[in-house]
Amino acid sequence: MLPEFETYLRSHSDLTETDMQRITGCATLRHVHRNERLLQEGQICRHKIFILKGLLRTFGTSTDGNEHILHFAPELNWTLDAESYDRQIPARFTIAAIENSDVLLWGKTDFDFLLTDIPALKALAQKLISTTIYSSRQRLLTTLSGSPQEKYEDFFRSFPDLVPRLPLHMIASYLGMSLKTLTRIRHGQLHR
Amino acid sequence: MLPEFETYLRSHSDLTETDMQRITGCATLRHVHRNERLLQEGQICRHKIFILKGLLRTFGTSTDGNEHILHFAPELNWTLDAESYDRQIPARFTIAAIENSDVLLWGKTDFDFLLTDIPALKALAQKLISTTIYSSRQRLLTTLSGSPQEKYEDFFRSFPDLVPRLPLHMIASYLGMSLKTLTRIRHGQLHR
Repeated sequence: MLPEFETYLRSHSDLTETDMQRITGCATLRHVHRNERLLQEGQICRHKIFILKGLLRTFGTSTDGNEHILHFAPELNWTLDAESYDRQIPARFTIAAIENSDVLLWGKTDFDFLLTDIPALKALAQKLISTTIYSSRQRLLTTLSGSPQEKYEDFFRSFPDLVPRLPLHMIASYLGMSLKTLTRIRHGQLHR
Repeated sequence: MLPEFETYLRSHSDLTETDMQRITGCATLRHVHRNERLLQEGQICRHKIFILKGLLRTFGTSTDGNEHILHFAPELNWTLDAESYDRQIPARFTIAAIENSDVLLWGKTDFDFLLTDIPALKALAQKLISTTIYSSRQRLLTTLSGSPQEKYEDFFRSFPDLVPRLPLHMIASYLGMSLKTLTRIRHGQLHR
């Protein structure tokens, strides 16, 4: 049924076939159109999201109305607004599709039950939480410390497959620089 | 023995008196002098740290040798380099004392044993991990989105008690701006 997801689970966890079937059995498959929003700032994040195909972004909006991208989630990744989901309070962030995407969704009650009942899923979830903490510290350091040039090169090194799939203004938004600065950097690279 | 820590545990968890005694029984009390380093980038983070008194900072160093502060940890907070501690690999960050401080330290083996054996401690640890994730997302958004003025005002609102305890250059480092910019902002505020 969901071969990509099952391959992912097999390579990232010690789940049995029966457990995998229980997990996929609780999921809803949904197609999301490009630019469609899966979660809107102010709404409650009711689902854990796994991306089967496509690409999502999570962004916050600053007081001047500008969009600041915190996170890109391509295929075979999870995404959600953790605080909104855990506490069932209004989300501070929006999650939207950059490409036409296929996602799996789990409601909180179902997923909480799976987590309690399947220790190997709990272990996977904890591993993912740890990875989130490590990478967000690193991202913060890069955001604070790098020159625009270093930030772009770091992004290019870290996500070579994403670069051609992203509009430039989104890369600029993720890196916290203007589109003009990003264009200048890329122009400089091409002419080196 | 450690009234501040026990008061903290009572107000943040459902630990029994016996469990609290077991937890404090595994801790080592250490005095750290101002500017002393509890963890040096490149070393392995061997301890969970709880600050009883004083103030620590966690910083990373960029390729140009500059210090970028990710986190301030005043009294009644925990700190560590999570990736280094969890995986027992060299730390990317340094933890140092800003003021003369008293801290409690737990070795990983002891703390892991306590976590397995005391569900209320595990619950507290998970709550702290969640809070870390929520606040690091918010910090990233502020870092990406705010003007220097907004960043400073946000910091002042979020940590009013810390501002008078911190040298200006550390606030500037935390906010990702130059000391000159921060001084200009503060000067502007005084003369409004």
